[in-house]
Amino acid sequence: MNYTFTTFPDRFQWFYKKKTMLNKIKFLLIGSPLPSEMLKEKRLNKIRALAAFSPDALSSVAYANQEIFLGLVIAGSSGLVFQFPIAAGISLLLVIVALSYAQTIRGYPNGGGSYVVARENLGEYPGLVAGGALLLDYVLTAAVSLTAGVAAISSAFPQLWPYKVWIALGLLLVVTLLNLRGIRESGTVLSIPVYLFIFTFGGMILYGIIRAIIQGTPTPISYTAPQMIEPLGLLLVLHAFSAGCTALTGIEAISNGVPAFMPPEWVNARKTLIIMAGIMGFLFLGSMGLTQFFAIIPLDQETILSALARQLLGKNLLYYLVQFSTLFILAVAANTSFAGFPRIAAIMAKDRYLPRQLFNVGDRLVFQNGIILLSILTAGLIILFNGDSHALVPLFAVGAFTAFTLSQMGMVFHWIRLKEKGWHYKAIINALGAVVTAITLIIIGLSKFIEGAWISIFVIPALVAIFRKIHRHYEQVSTQLSMHGLPPSLRPWSSPRVVIPISGVHRGMVDAVNFARSISERVTAVFIDIEPGPDEDELRKSWNDWFPDVNFVVVPSPFRSLVEPLLTYLDQTDREHNDGQQAVLVLPEIIPGSSWQEILHNQSADEIKKALLFQRHHQGLQRIIIDVPYHLKK
Amino acid sequence: MNYTFTTFPDRFQWFYKKKTMLNKIKFLLIGSPLPSEMLKEKRLNKIRALAAFSPDALSSVAYANQEIFLGLVIAGSSGLVFQFPIAAGISLLLVIVALSYAQTIRGYPNGGGSYVVARENLGEYPGLVAGGALLLDYVLTAAVSLTAGVAAISSAFPQLWPYKVWIALGLLLVVTLLNLRGIRESGTVLSIPVYLFIFTFGGMILYGIIRAIIQGTPTPISYTAPQMIEPLGLLLVLHAFSAGCTALTGIEAISNGVPAFMPPEWVNARKTLIIMAGIMGFLFLGSMGLTQFFAIIPLDQETILSALARQLLGKNLLYYLVQFSTLFILAVAANTSFAGFPRIAAIMAKDRYLPRQLFNVGDRLVFQNGIILLSILTAGLIILFNGDSHALVPLFAVGAFTAFTLSQMGMVFHWIRLKEKGWHYKAIINALGAVVTAITLIIIGLSKFIEGAWISIFVIPALVAIFRKIHRHYEQVSTQLSMHGLPPSLRPWSSPRVVIPISGVHRGMVDAVNFARSISERVTAVFIDIEPGPDEDELRKSWNDWFPDVNFVVVPSPFRSLVEPLLTYLDQTDREHNDGQQAVLVLPEIIPGSSWQEILHNQSADEIKKALLFQRHHQGLQRIIIDVPYHLKK
Repeated sequence: MNYTFTTFPDRFQWFYKKKTMLNKIKFLLIGSPLPSEMLKEKRLNKIRALAAFSPDALSSVAYANQEIFLGLVIAGSSGLVFQFPIAAGISLLLVIVALSYAQTIRGYPNGGGSYVVARENLGEYPGLVAGGALLLDYVLTAAVSLTAGVAAISSAFPQLWPYKVWIALGLLLVVTLLNLRGIRESGTVLSIPVYLFIFTFGGMILYGIIRAIIQGTPTPISYTAPQMIEPLGLLLVLHAFSAGCTALTGIEAISNGVPAFMPPEWVNARKTLIIMAGIMGFLFLGSMGLTQFFAIIPLDQETILSALARQLLGKNLLYYLVQFSTLFILAVAANTSFAGFPRIAAIMAKDRYLPRQLFNVGDRLVFQNGIILLSILTAGLIILFNGDSHALVPLFAVGAFTAFTLSQMGMVFHWIRLKEKGWHYKAIINALGAVVTAITLIIIGLSKFIEGAWISIFVIPALVAIFRKIHRHYEQVSTQLSMHGLPPSLRPWSSPRVVIPISGVHRGMVDAVNFARSISERVTAVFIDIEPGPDEDELRKSWNDWFPDVNFVVVPSPFRSLVEPLLTYLDQTDREHNDGQQAVLVLPEIIPGSSWQEILHNQSADEIKKALLFQRHHQGLQRIIIDVPYHLKK
Repeated sequence: MNYTFTTFPDRFQWFYKKKTMLNKIKFLLIGSPLPSEMLKEKRLNKIRALAAFSPDALSSVAYANQEIFLGLVIAGSSGLVFQFPIAAGISLLLVIVALSYAQTIRGYPNGGGSYVVARENLGEYPGLVAGGALLLDYVLTAAVSLTAGVAAISSAFPQLWPYKVWIALGLLLVVTLLNLRGIRESGTVLSIPVYLFIFTFGGMILYGIIRAIIQGTPTPISYTAPQMIEPLGLLLVLHAFSAGCTALTGIEAISNGVPAFMPPEWVNARKTLIIMAGIMGFLFLGSMGLTQFFAIIPLDQETILSALARQLLGKNLLYYLVQFSTLFILAVAANTSFAGFPRIAAIMAKDRYLPRQLFNVGDRLVFQNGIILLSILTAGLIILFNGDSHALVPLFAVGAFTAFTLSQMGMVFHWIRLKEKGWHYKAIINALGAVVTAITLIIIGLSKFIEGAWISIFVIPALVAIFRKIHRHYEQVSTQLSMHGLPPSLRPWSSPRVVIPISGVHRGMVDAVNFARSISERVTAVFIDIEPGPDEDELRKSWNDWFPDVNFVVVPSPFRSLVEPLLTYLDQTDREHNDGQQAVLVLPEIIPGSSWQEILHNQSADEIKKALLFQRHHQGLQRIIIDVPYHLKK
């Protein structure tokens, strides 16, 4: 009889059965389970794709500007004149990286995340380094985006500053729940903040440019700049540059998601990438340029972007609109991590570098374990760094640029291997990308080392070691589980010897004894005698009355333990029988009607099960346990 | 075959097997297990018995004096003149209560705790009230003694005041561990602090009395007394009296432990009680009298007893000796709770009013669950009341005097029932005790209501309700487990149908299939198909190659759940077979070599077991589960 079980008349019945309080809350927050057939993804047109993949990249403006400003302001006005030149340098980097990724899109139309590209072209270890860097990067993106978003809104409402951590955690919870529901449902919702941000923020910059043209000459910066704390030097400028490089994070998102585009996928993806890089460059260069032109200096508890908006627009409705759209796009950017992290974790879990649970698709067709893991890690970072995006940023760029460099290097080898038409040209572009991002990575690593880059430099190899250890375990398991070497026809087992530990003659034992007798003729009931006395003889008599065909053995327990004498008895009788068999244990288990009652019962069955698990392990034994439940009604 | 398993050649083997890190630490702290035959208690002579049973009563001086002083000082010097009169009143109470308990010792030579006496003579509810009051009283004794001990030592070393909670918790830990080791071992150790306290403190009082005689007239109290805060009134005096009544706590201890005395038990016990009451009265009246005579006023962070010792002896070595012996006897008094609480909890557990685990005798022949429970509750109180014995005292006396009253009332009924020679006289003594303690209880309850007595007044009925609920549950269980009504010869079960959920063809399945075939000819392997595809056909082919005699069924899982489709399949096929049988589930369980690896595996077997437990319960089903482990080596 070999068949597929198809009659599911009550296909959904179990969901109604499970209407516990917990499940009700879960359904309310996350929605009811979805069938696998809904897994096929709807393809995205360019408008939707831009909304889906760009928020991380676009919103980087919010913290990159801030970091450059904070990096330069310590040198006073002589530092702040470098704002626009640094922005220009980073924009050049942006062009190079964007061109590089345009190549990746062409080369990996099925989605070429850094992990995949590095692993395929450079080998296991570079792949794992890229994977670890990416995972770290996603966690940091989520944490930095949320905290920067809270900073944006707290700039508008300074009374919110003391509650930054709580607000960030609240946003995190909302993003997590939305993602556990499934991203598709929120797809349209997500594109609103993106375009809102592009239009409000872009509009503000256009307006600023017009005002700058009217004004003609820049506002002299020395009027407003605070006192110099540290003299200007190369290190200070490099430091500010490193900090500003966080503007580039998120640019690789499109190359990971090529299959989500409408056909021709890679063409549309590449076009979208170019558009995104263009908008990004405009917003970044524009805002930095205007900040320098109008010599903007923020208040005590204010971001530089808020100060720019406040000075350009005045503190009116438009200003608040800009701040809110900044918050929203940053929240959506955090959401990008929630799409990316679980996906890369699932790929690595499938390759057996992470626990396989991360590959499980949950009720709502999302990698829910990955989402929950990311949420916990992000919350940890937000709490640990007290909701301060400035403290988080030094950890940030290391992961992103490690992944950039390895991915571009991988692409170089890819083109060299394939040697398709025009491969020289393609390889050179990616090589340029690899070299530039590698140099940037070194600058970042050195100039931000003490401030926190060391953490990332330490975490990535640690992750790689963990990946390897997990992988080794799974490999060993699969060797141990292989049927290879087993004789093709297995010798049948003879009927088992059965031992039932009993606590007395009562109904809880009846099913256990009946079942034992139905599978074996060699059944022994064992009574562990903790308090020797006359009760024992009475019990023996009563047992023989009810179950005359079942042996009854009393095992004394001088140390009042239930478990150890039982195990000793089992081991010893196994040895005495010497039939190559282990006795099978039938455990009568009394299960109370409600869970509070469980503490009113000695959990003997549980104890025995745990001890057997432990002792079997110790001795390499593997005793079969048969659980025969008896349910109490009240 | 009915026999007692006696050959235990490797009787202790399991203790060596279990040498895990946790067990090693446990053995180091608590010692190795003791056999039951060591349970017979060594009888105590009067010297040892006094040391064993008196610390709680004697050490009450440490907080009772303090409470009377704090109660009166708010009325300034006009209040403090009542110190000795109140002490005299309480001493009278002491005489009455001691005489009453001397009767109890005679009437209940096997140990007449308030619970036993009240339950036997007054009925279930009064017994439960007494039991609840006693349990509460023991917890409070432990908490008050420890915090008062810390106050004594912090009076000598004021720099310790900020760490009071931590020191009290540290002492609690030491006392708990000593008790988990077993009280006998520490028996001799415990008598040292008791006699040290009697001699140092008693000696100080004798010395003080001599100095008082030399001085002749009392020091005028108005010189030293602080300003009056509240005018003197009856309420204030009653209030101080109530607070001072805590001096009487612990006096019932001997009546609980009569069987521990050398024969003739009740005679020795009664003599010891009289000696104890005498010492207690001397220490209490003496210290209160001297405090008033010399117009002692403590410093800011000092107890009244410390102030007395400091003024009498000067702050020299003798002073420190008194403070340390106070700390030690208070710690030993806390220890009394650790003897009493687990014993009364065990008695109530045996009577099925508390979870039966409290009746289990642990490795070291002590009621370890009771000890641990008491330790947790005491720690909770110490933390909650911030280590302040003064805040705890209002809760204290209610429990003790409730138990006193019920116990004495019970004795009255006892004598009336027995009507033995001289019963009138005996009943009158106990009736006097009952009336006096009842009046005191009412005074305490009223005058200390707001300060905390309400908590005890609320807790005791709540405990009684819990006892009743637990009792009802155990009664229902025993009805449900009764064999009564079962036919004397049970119909044998036919061989089971067996279902094995499989995850593939691998070694982890082999034992499960072999075992299933050894107990049944109707074995079906079920594969829950989460991702439909060609793998399924391959699996089917491979299965048929290896296990041609085992049916193979594929159950689709559109919602990717493992558990629910399996349960649906089981329910549905049970219904189809309609043979009154439930299929038995054989669960192949792969167990990793070390516990960190467990997170690398889907805990499918655990999930299925839990769901079955839940669903069985829901539908009143009781499916048998057979666990076939396969241990991985690495």
